[in-house]
Amino acid sequence: MERQIRVGIVGYGNIAKGVEAAIQKNSDMELMTIFTRREPSSVAVNGTNVKVVSIDEIEKYKNEIDVLILCGGSANDLPIQGPLFAKMFNTVDSFDNHAKIPEYFALVDTAAKDSGKTSIISVGWDPGLFSINRMLGEAVLPGVATYTFWGKGVSQGHSNAIRRIKGVKAGIQYTIPRKEALEQVRTGDSPDLTAREKHLRQCFVVAEENADKEQIANEIKTMPNYFADYDTEVIFISEEEFKANHSQMAHGGLVINTGRTGDGSNKQIIEFSLKLDSNPEFTGSILTAYARAAYRLAQEGQTGAKTILDVPLALLSSKSPEELRKNFL
Amino acid sequence: MERQIRVGIVGYGNIAKGVEAAIQKNSDMELMTIFTRREPSSVAVNGTNVKVVSIDEIEKYKNEIDVLILCGGSANDLPIQGPLFAKMFNTVDSFDNHAKIPEYFALVDTAAKDSGKTSIISVGWDPGLFSINRMLGEAVLPGVATYTFWGKGVSQGHSNAIRRIKGVKAGIQYTIPRKEALEQVRTGDSPDLTAREKHLRQCFVVAEENADKEQIANEIKTMPNYFADYDTEVIFISEEEFKANHSQMAHGGLVINTGRTGDGSNKQIIEFSLKLDSNPEFTGSILTAYARAAYRLAQEGQTGAKTILDVPLALLSSKSPEELRKNFL
Repeated sequence: MERQIRVGIVGYGNIAKGVEAAIQKNSDMELMTIFTRREPSSVAVNGTNVKVVSIDEIEKYKNEIDVLILCGGSANDLPIQGPLFAKMFNTVDSFDNHAKIPEYFALVDTAAKDSGKTSIISVGWDPGLFSINRMLGEAVLPGVATYTFWGKGVSQGHSNAIRRIKGVKAGIQYTIPRKEALEQVRTGDSPDLTAREKHLRQCFVVAEENADKEQIANEIKTMPNYFADYDTEVIFISEEEFKANHSQMAHGGLVINTGRTGDGSNKQIIEFSLKLDSNPEFTGSILTAYARAAYRLAQEGQTGAKTILDVPLALLSSKSPEELRKNFL
Repeated sequence: MERQIRVGIVGYGNIAKGVEAAIQKNSDMELMTIFTRREPSSVAVNGTNVKVVSIDEIEKYKNEIDVLILCGGSANDLPIQGPLFAKMFNTVDSFDNHAKIPEYFALVDTAAKDSGKTSIISVGWDPGLFSINRMLGEAVLPGVATYTFWGKGVSQGHSNAIRRIKGVKAGIQYTIPRKEALEQVRTGDSPDLTAREKHLRQCFVVAEENADKEQIANEIKTMPNYFADYDTEVIFISEEEFKANHSQMAHGGLVINTGRTGDGSNKQIIEFSLKLDSNPEFTGSILTAYARAAYRLAQEGQTGAKTILDVPLALLSSKSPEELRKNFL
């Protein structure tokens, strides 16, 4: 057997813990080091052989890590870390600020080409597996109508928006696909749907003592960009209930492509869906498979930035091409 | 704009007609020639500028065709045509005899490497898009339970088996996924399911005059390999009804992956499904997208045989990598 792929992780939040657990299920990979901004001794990892090291020391590990999985956030961490660490390591990240992907790609690409390393950016399920399915729909059925639904699951952005409102002690927002919209899309008739018709927004809010609940609810429901274009439900609950029932990390969603072929009379419907008990563990599992691909692309000399659309799927699997042809085709 | 990709088609059955229609929706491709074993003048094609040529003349077109799409059958045509035409052209085919894919791959690979051409084999939805989803499940969730369901749709193999029975004038078999099985799989509990539990087989039969219907039904239901391991329904109908209601080409199916992550308590469910009004038109559409990929791989100098697992998805699209990153990630 070839030696194991040596993996490093930057950060130790929920996604990093998902990566850590995933690596344990992939016998061709080994988690070597977790790089943290915290005091290393304060970070309690699950694996016994895993070193925790200050991120300031990372450059010293250049030759000991085959792939570095960046588990920081897209708002503040990755825009700095992505290009910086691509100068030293093969990297994989889950940069998920859709509008800024082209810009981020360019920065990482330049860095990785300079260093002769390989970086796969924006890996996960959206962007990620959902991107694959959106692109596949358009490639196979030109002129296809593609619908992405998210949920039921927590939107961090919307939850944060709620928490910024005066009088809100705690809050969480669930995005829920509307059943009527799903049914309409699944007819294959390619309906035009507004944001309001596709998703429902459900907010659970803990109000400060003496806060004006009506005012809070109104402020949420009319908030531009976040809630004004949706039917939004606001439910006030106690802090105890909030803690007990709203720390779950379930999520999911669907990509549905509906197109027509031949003379235009035949409908073709492609549907991809996820139902996830743990969003960060699933994302961590995908990052781990793409870390294997990044390592292999680097070995083939394919340097620079890549996205999930550029990577042959066979590179994700620990199995040989022969085994894949035999077992999965 | 670059010049169009020049496509040839071998054969002119239902899949070939699906390819012909798909090419018309892809402005970067042009259907040049259909190669046929029939008398060319007897083949009425839809496109006005398409030449119909005897397959015996095919070698003369070596320099006029960028990719050849092989639309013959897997039983008798492709085992000969695949390796033969890979010596002259970049090719794409839908070889779907799962058990013989490794052997077929090896033959085509040798031929294509010799000629410096690129061949993508076993393209379609199963093998094809379903293979992608089976492999992805295993790569992302090691130890995953993967379920493939087919239908509702016609199985040619089972229909042929019915027609071979004495006293049967016409017959067709629909494979139908069982709702209870789908429900069980979607719980994420990874149940063990027998063939009988997963699919129902529904047969519509036109009997010869004076044939013993009970005997025919019994012979179908007890036929080893094809029907004995399933619950099989046999419905006798008139020839008129058969012609009126059973010439449709609808099909579909699902690949469902259910795995667990983290400490094993979190279920993760990935589901991919197709609902197709026209099986051959959809297969033809996929072949067309992979023809583009074969052409591009050949231009990159990546010769030999490939499968759908080896091809970066970005190569399927007429859009540039920049557009793909902007629109689909």
